[in-house]
Amino acid sequence: MDNYQAPLRDFRFLLEDVFDANQLWERLPGMSGVSTDFVRTVLEEGARIASRELAPINHSGDREGCEWADGTVTTPQGFRQAFTALGEGGWLSMNGNPDYGGQGLPKMLTVLIEEMFYSANTSLFLYGTLTAGAAYCIESHGTEAVKRRYLPPLYDGRWGGAMAMTEPQAGSDLGLIRTRAEPQADGTYRVKGTKLYLTGGEHDLTENIIHLVLARLPDAPAGTRGLSMFLVPKFLVDERGALGRRNKLRSLSIEHKMGINGSATSLMEYDEATGWLVGEPHQGLATMFTMMNYERLSVGMQGLGLSAIAVQSAGAYAQQRLQGRAPAGPVHPDESADPITAHPDVRRMLLVQRALVEGGRAFAILVGRELDLVRYADDDDEREQAAAFVGLLTPVAKAFLTDRGLDCCVLAQQVFGGAGFIVETGVEQFVRDCRIAQIYEGTNGIQAQDLIGRKVLRDGGATLSAFVDRLRAELPRDARHYAATTAEFDRLIAVTADLIERCEQDPNLAGAIATDFLELFGYTVYAWLWARMDACAGADEFGQAKRYTAQFYFDRVLPRADALVRGIRADSNALMAVPDAMF
Amino acid sequence: MDNYQAPLRDFRFLLEDVFDANQLWERLPGMSGVSTDFVRTVLEEGARIASRELAPINHSGDREGCEWADGTVTTPQGFRQAFTALGEGGWLSMNGNPDYGGQGLPKMLTVLIEEMFYSANTSLFLYGTLTAGAAYCIESHGTEAVKRRYLPPLYDGRWGGAMAMTEPQAGSDLGLIRTRAEPQADGTYRVKGTKLYLTGGEHDLTENIIHLVLARLPDAPAGTRGLSMFLVPKFLVDERGALGRRNKLRSLSIEHKMGINGSATSLMEYDEATGWLVGEPHQGLATMFTMMNYERLSVGMQGLGLSAIAVQSAGAYAQQRLQGRAPAGPVHPDESADPITAHPDVRRMLLVQRALVEGGRAFAILVGRELDLVRYADDDDEREQAAAFVGLLTPVAKAFLTDRGLDCCVLAQQVFGGAGFIVETGVEQFVRDCRIAQIYEGTNGIQAQDLIGRKVLRDGGATLSAFVDRLRAELPRDARHYAATTAEFDRLIAVTADLIERCEQDPNLAGAIATDFLELFGYTVYAWLWARMDACAGADEFGQAKRYTAQFYFDRVLPRADALVRGIRADSNALMAVPDAMF
Repeated sequence: MDNYQAPLRDFRFLLEDVFDANQLWERLPGMSGVSTDFVRTVLEEGARIASRELAPINHSGDREGCEWADGTVTTPQGFRQAFTALGEGGWLSMNGNPDYGGQGLPKMLTVLIEEMFYSANTSLFLYGTLTAGAAYCIESHGTEAVKRRYLPPLYDGRWGGAMAMTEPQAGSDLGLIRTRAEPQADGTYRVKGTKLYLTGGEHDLTENIIHLVLARLPDAPAGTRGLSMFLVPKFLVDERGALGRRNKLRSLSIEHKMGINGSATSLMEYDEATGWLVGEPHQGLATMFTMMNYERLSVGMQGLGLSAIAVQSAGAYAQQRLQGRAPAGPVHPDESADPITAHPDVRRMLLVQRALVEGGRAFAILVGRELDLVRYADDDDEREQAAAFVGLLTPVAKAFLTDRGLDCCVLAQQVFGGAGFIVETGVEQFVRDCRIAQIYEGTNGIQAQDLIGRKVLRDGGATLSAFVDRLRAELPRDARHYAATTAEFDRLIAVTADLIERCEQDPNLAGAIATDFLELFGYTVYAWLWARMDACAGADEFGQAKRYTAQFYFDRVLPRADALVRGIRADSNALMAVPDAMF
Repeated sequence: MDNYQAPLRDFRFLLEDVFDANQLWERLPGMSGVSTDFVRTVLEEGARIASRELAPINHSGDREGCEWADGTVTTPQGFRQAFTALGEGGWLSMNGNPDYGGQGLPKMLTVLIEEMFYSANTSLFLYGTLTAGAAYCIESHGTEAVKRRYLPPLYDGRWGGAMAMTEPQAGSDLGLIRTRAEPQADGTYRVKGTKLYLTGGEHDLTENIIHLVLARLPDAPAGTRGLSMFLVPKFLVDERGALGRRNKLRSLSIEHKMGINGSATSLMEYDEATGWLVGEPHQGLATMFTMMNYERLSVGMQGLGLSAIAVQSAGAYAQQRLQGRAPAGPVHPDESADPITAHPDVRRMLLVQRALVEGGRAFAILVGRELDLVRYADDDDEREQAAAFVGLLTPVAKAFLTDRGLDCCVLAQQVFGGAGFIVETGVEQFVRDCRIAQIYEGTNGIQAQDLIGRKVLRDGGATLSAFVDRLRAELPRDARHYAATTAEFDRLIAVTADLIERCEQDPNLAGAIATDFLELFGYTVYAWLWARMDACAGADEFGQAKRYTAQFYFDRVLPRADALVRGIRADSNALMAVPDAMF
């Protein structure tokens, strides 16, 4: 199961045929160096790294796990070498700012690199994700001096990054954070507090680790409006970037977890650690959200990447596992039995996975496109519109890709039968590694409330409508699934309008239907993606498989939207009325 | 998380108010000693054993796992003592034949004992399940001498049982079994072959282990019609029941698994082991199915038991975890935040779990009732009808209780947020322990094909119709959810009639829709169960919670049936047309 074949054919189909990315890159000022050939080369090189450097130490990394001793953390064998290779190859600065040594590649491309790296080795790549996220936050909010000092070593993987938000009493509710920061005469701050669940908070992969810590200044108001963000390096850094003394932060322990065992999750103590304010005082949550939104899409890619390798493994297994006979008579009468791909129920499992994984991949590129427009479009209106779409799509990318990701990993495991439960087969690790993605970086329930509350109700559905209009305009009227897709759009718009009205009457309704609404949105957008993929598919075997999978999506997966709509029409009375003590 | 509170109040509500079990027990000849008071006492004593003996070693058993060395297996600390307590307390012979020392308790009661024991410690109780299953098979097919010799020590837990079916090349397709049995002059057989995935095939809990092995006689036809069943004890047993020499079978290794780590899963070698034929030659599959059907319901109870303790844990956590504020304003303005039960999306997760767990528990009692009728009714027609209903319901109990069981465990874990991913919290173990239940004793896909093929299409839907008629007759017309429930029944009957016709035209259709059909059947029967529970609920807080949960089931869970019906209406063309090589 250390075998991984990157879906390069599907990547090319999506970028070149479905999204015509080249046309976009040609018109965006910052993207002029990006061409189809260049992108193919980058994807092929990423695939090589994923298969040869990351995948071979994925299973061993899970078995070995990380070891904590006296505040230091030892990562599994091979992790340091592979992380160094990622850094040196420029894979941690794919989206980084070229002014400071970043690659400045389009997000439409880099989401696919992320998918491959998560498929190959989620635990290892998570260190990179946090590093790239911290760099992005510093790039967006740091002073010029801070950027010059911190970005290059983060970009090339000599240093790592970490995000310190959660505390024992403050998880989803960051307003309860207690960590404090005292200003010093020299302009630095003394940061004091305990933080939980730091992915990559301590490890042996890099010379230094840059922590971004949410804390309260002495004059801070209560709640989330009193949080500020501080850059707290493991080793202090002088003006020329050289490492100085050890800062006063320490890993108190690492967690024993269900999965991502190669990724060290630290409980951290900041004992008057020296820190620097990043961004404005009391604006820490907004500053941190730069990083969070980056991470949220990335966590979505974790769900997608794990489900992608899971279905690949299941498909390969199903083709060679011989059990029973096809219902319409033997397919291989000369063998002891037919491959289990002959059984309709096995095909159902494989096709549900294909429909969701390939739909999810297309969805990720769609989000990537909007992110590229936010960053590179020279028209203000276009940038603003794209930013609104990114806001709308980010919670869906995080929650829907990870919820469907777990579904697919579980289905893939089911295809293996008894072997799927055995550690050595490898597929059970994908289930365990995927599970956390539904929880961290804001639980999927939080994402759903973000979508319905901030992204839909707040502007009376205007962004949602504009987004649906944009998708409608991009689907040819003669597409096979045009009618079915536009019917879904109409229904989503009607459901939303109805909700806007009902939520005004009932303060609990938005929360009560948030998750179902997010799923309805997801399945509806996937319908458009499958309709487009169907319309763009060629006549070869690959194209045939796309078209049949599209048909399967409309026949067998999209009907889930019916159930969601019926559920959303219910009021919140029964939900809210059950006495608390009965739970 | 070693804390477990048995749902005794719900047990009583279901047995006494919903199913009026006492009335049934009074009229069944073999049940005359069973009374409501007696049943309450048994449940309370079972609850005590579950909480005090089994739950405290559940988490430690997972951490320690089993150890294999040179063919012997060491189970986790405390397992032997607890297993002995189960045996001595009569908990392994609950359903056993009183003529040989069994308790002969009604299945309506013992499914609930099973639920509690699986909740408290699935790994440990699995040794008991296999033991009770082997005893049931011997009781049903053994000669009088064999019964006298083997049943008493199996009933009292001095000996264990195991089931040897799977081989590396023969999983779902038992026709591919290669293990052979050669008849000897003394009437015994020499059994030779390798068997995979034996739960309890080797361990240190009992003096002896009785293996029931599927193998082929020399003159056996190919396929499943050439299988015979052999009793192969670890230690040979003389006529007075004393243990003799070690038999030639050996555990070659135990599996490293995703979960149920306290349950040793052996790869076994039978190297001309001495065995005795049980049942008729070449009828081994039918003989084994006596045990399999017993195990299938029990595996369903595993799914239910794990989801029951998971939701109990999640509810307790949600009541005390303070994060954020209720959407309609603070519930506890004096605290730093409200308990997360104030958030509608958290309530949604808890109520989905309640609706499925309590519905599942009611479903299990429904199956138990039919099993009691099969065993104890004195009317031939009633017994025959009940046997047909058991056949119809068994695959649903196995698959639906375990699929929904995993859903609920995952949802419970989600309620815990980040803590849910941490091993010490304990809920992640429920997810891992539940996952195998969807796979073993016939994958859930196999169950679905059994339901649609053997149980529905084969008799043209007659048993299904009779079953639905029976349920209709048992729901008062003035019940609140009468109309909604009967509408679901009508739809299920219509979908079935339509399927019977379409399956004649398309050999792939039954397999293509099997899983969706099983789920449709499950959600429809749960509608009836919730309608009945609603009708029987009292005016107290417990009754209120039942009624609101029933409303929630009809509002928010049952709509899934809409999606299933729409999916079932699709043909199998797209599913079958995807080229195999594309998987």
